[in-house]
Amino acid sequence: MSRRRIMHMITPTDSVSPFDVNMAVDAGYEVIVPHCGVGESSVADFVQDAIFSRPPKSASTTGMFIGGGDVNRASEMLEIAKNAMVPPFEVSVLADPNGAFTTSAALVAVIEKCLSEHASASLKGSNLKIFGGGPVGLSTAVLAKECGASVSLIRLTASADDGALSEFTARFGVDIDSRRAVEQPERIAEAADAQVIVTTAKAGIQVLGQEALDQASGLLIAADVNAVPPTGIEGVEVMHNGDDVVCKWGSFKSIGALGIGRVKYKTQLELLKSMLASEDSLVLGLSDAYTEAARHA
Amino acid sequence: MSRRRIMHMITPTDSVSPFDVNMAVDAGYEVIVPHCGVGESSVADFVQDAIFSRPPKSASTTGMFIGGGDVNRASEMLEIAKNAMVPPFEVSVLADPNGAFTTSAALVAVIEKCLSEHASASLKGSNLKIFGGGPVGLSTAVLAKECGASVSLIRLTASADDGALSEFTARFGVDIDSRRAVEQPERIAEAADAQVIVTTAKAGIQVLGQEALDQASGLLIAADVNAVPPTGIEGVEVMHNGDDVVCKWGSFKSIGALGIGRVKYKTQLELLKSMLASEDSLVLGLSDAYTEAARHA
Amino acid sequence: MSRRRIMHMITPTDSVSPFDVNMAVDAGYEVIVPHCGVGESSVADFVQDAIFSRPPKSASTTGMFIGGGDVNRASEMLEIAKNAMVPPFEVSVLADPNGAFTTSAALVAVIEKCLSEHASASLKGSNLKIFGGGPVGLSTAVLAKECGASVSLIRLTASADDGALSEFTARFGVDIDSRRAVEQPERIAEAADAQVIVTTAKAGIQVLGQEALDQASGLLIAADVNAVPPTGIEGVEVMHNGDDVVCKWGSFKSIGALGIGRVKYKTQLELLKSMLASEDSLVLGLSDAYTEAARHA
Repeated sequence: MSRRRIMHMITPTDSVSPFDVNMAVDAGYEVIVPHCGVGESSVADFVQDAIFSRPPKSASTTGMFIGGGDVNRASEMLEIAKNAMVPPFEVSVLADPNGAFTTSAALVAVIEKCLSEHASASLKGSNLKIFGGGPVGLSTAVLAKECGASVSLIRLTASADDGALSEFTARFGVDIDSRRAVEQPERIAEAADAQVIVTTAKAGIQVLGQEALDQASGLLIAADVNAVPPTGIEGVEVMHNGDDVVCKWGSFKSIGALGIGRVKYKTQLELLKSMLASEDSLVLGLSDAYTEAARHA
Repeated sequence: MSRRRIMHMITPTDSVSPFDVNMAVDAGYEVIVPHCGVGESSVADFVQDAIFSRPPKSASTTGMFIGGGDVNRASEMLEIAKNAMVPPFEVSVLADPNGAFTTSAALVAVIEKCLSEHASASLKGSNLKIFGGGPVGLSTAVLAKECGASVSLIRLTASADDGALSEFTARFGVDIDSRRAVEQPERIAEAADAQVIVTTAKAGIQVLGQEALDQASGLLIAADVNAVPPTGIEGVEVMHNGDDVVCKWGSFKSIGALGIGRVKYKTQLELLKSMLASEDSLVLGLSDAYTEAARHA
Repeated sequence: MSRRRIMHMITPTDSVSPFDVNMAVDAGYEVIVPHCGVGESSVADFVQDAIFSRPPKSASTTGMFIGGGDVNRASEMLEIAKNAMVPPFEVSVLADPNGAFTTSAALVAVIEKCLSEHASASLKGSNLKIFGGGPVGLSTAVLAKECGASVSLIRLTASADDGALSEFTARFGVDIDSRRAVEQPERIAEAADAQVIVTTAKAGIQVLGQEALDQASGLLIAADVNAVPPTGIEGVEVMHNGDDVVCKWGSFKSIGALGIGRVKYKTQLELLKSMLASEDSLVLGLSDAYTEAARHA
């Protein structure tokens, strides 16, 4: 008799995301149990509670999902969970706080493919500017850096600090430039020499307008992750998926949220399915999400 | 392949009700996930998280239940949820805070039927007094008003205020008289000219005794919603379902909690089943509960 | 049509245990719903919410599990739950806070069997010293006392107080000696006249070393419940299951966590299965756990 497939969804916050619940169910998990308020101090006990109540080699039937909204906390919890396993007593774990790991993985994979197909270029050596330093911005910065891009993270508010960035880049052993561009002239100047622009601001905030684009004469690709218009870049639309957007000096390729979302969805689904297919424990984080996303871009 | 049927149960309070969980399961939902502490400010994001992780036209497999104990908050959350849909990306939603919508719907439907069968009368034009202004009292007041009754809500404590009533009636565009009757003489006076009396006080509190009934010489029906004796009206018993109760001036029909409960149960079950049967989004609140209850009274 | 089997997991704490979730699923429950923050004041309403939404005689398809970390609160909640039933409207309930009831039941059953097999003795009349007064220590003390042992509970810290012990023993109508042994000389003295020693300290704390064992010349059995080495008693290993440990004066039988854990697992699983097999309500606590454990030792 095969055991029923259980997904324990843990988060240091007060609620799990219905998005992640639905994905886990559609991947094949049969029982979904949310556990809120589980953080770094309790995750090890939590893992050991989960592993010792099922036989060895139960990773394919017992999964854990680490959510929340903080890429550093989720990464730390993933690391603690990994170290708490007592082989062969193991579960599989996926971290994807606020969907940021799979979203940024999809974003970078789609950009890489678009560069290759339309500009015979690649992220390697490209000048990438990321506007907005939330969970998706941070994750995108690290992945793009690992792809060899020259990455700058552009903060959009005066109050933004680099604590989360420093911690996150240290975790991956990379170094990323961070600057601030609160006013339009600064943003225009930042965009001017970019080959790839990514905006990850909150819904409804236009980060870059026509003037900025008209001066970014080396721009190959501009991408935005907001599913609800207006997007963060003038002319970039939600449905765009490598569409041409014309500006003063020529045109660039535009990528909107729906194309990214399709790859993000597929990435998350396949990561979850891989957990269900593996008798051995899989512990999946940002880098694994990118490996998977590259298959679906 | 059909997707598994998921019910996201959300509430602004700390816990979901086992009653509602059991009902959702028995209606056919396969995965039940509670989300506590979800209120007006987070419900829109919550809905969009739920709709964008499943294909368009997924309302029949992805449901949401809004619980809690406050009829205004639940109604507001239902409205926000409705507006957060992005057709064809939709889920179905039922609001039933503390069971008040289905309970009051059942109560009014049972009264209407009893009036029709036993007194050749109807709520239209009847003088209805509701004693107790909790969730069931408020919901009953609105439904009875919409049926054309002349409704008075009688508050039972000195501290009761009409804030919740004003907000709730404004939401439905009706106007309902509210008065206070803390002491017996006031209650006796209020009951005296009623044709229908409903008591919704806490378990174990007798609101109206024999003296009140003996003076209510036009009384056709008295109903109480408490499942545990004693009920709020002397002589009205939990099992009564149109039974005659004799008093000084003659007799009236008595309705107890079990008959109401049977219709409430059927109403909630059928509303949930209708969500599972509809490819299009259903957004169900108090009025929908009454439409359904009228079929089962 | 048979109804789907629902397990409502309630706890006064902030989270349910993945161990208990997995066990409930593997026993056969199909829908698992955690309810956190449910304590003595809300459990009666909670039970009545659960019983009145399903038909009479639904105990086999509707279960409740009382967790948390406090043996007194869980016992009190179990009692309240029992009294809140309205036969034939009932559910079945198992209390096992922090696994303490099934763990101590397994521990005492394994000791009893080991005494019988290897020393032609029994707990009846034996001098049992329990080091550590957490949930497992308290539960073990009560069960061993009910088996007729002469039981002493030895507290390991200066700050330990006997409030929880007094409340718990009063609940079972037994009286248990409690003393304090914070320093090694005191612990050595306490161990000296024991026939059975049980340690229930936190992981990684050695309670008794070789010197203590060398002076405990009447020792028949030493048992420790920690699954992660080092155990609380020098020479007692996690895998021991009646193994001989040699000391100055001879040898004693050693019992480690894995053997106890195997019986604990089987006990919890069978208790849950018995709930699923019984049309009538089962309300299962510490004593029931022992009855079950005795079958599996």
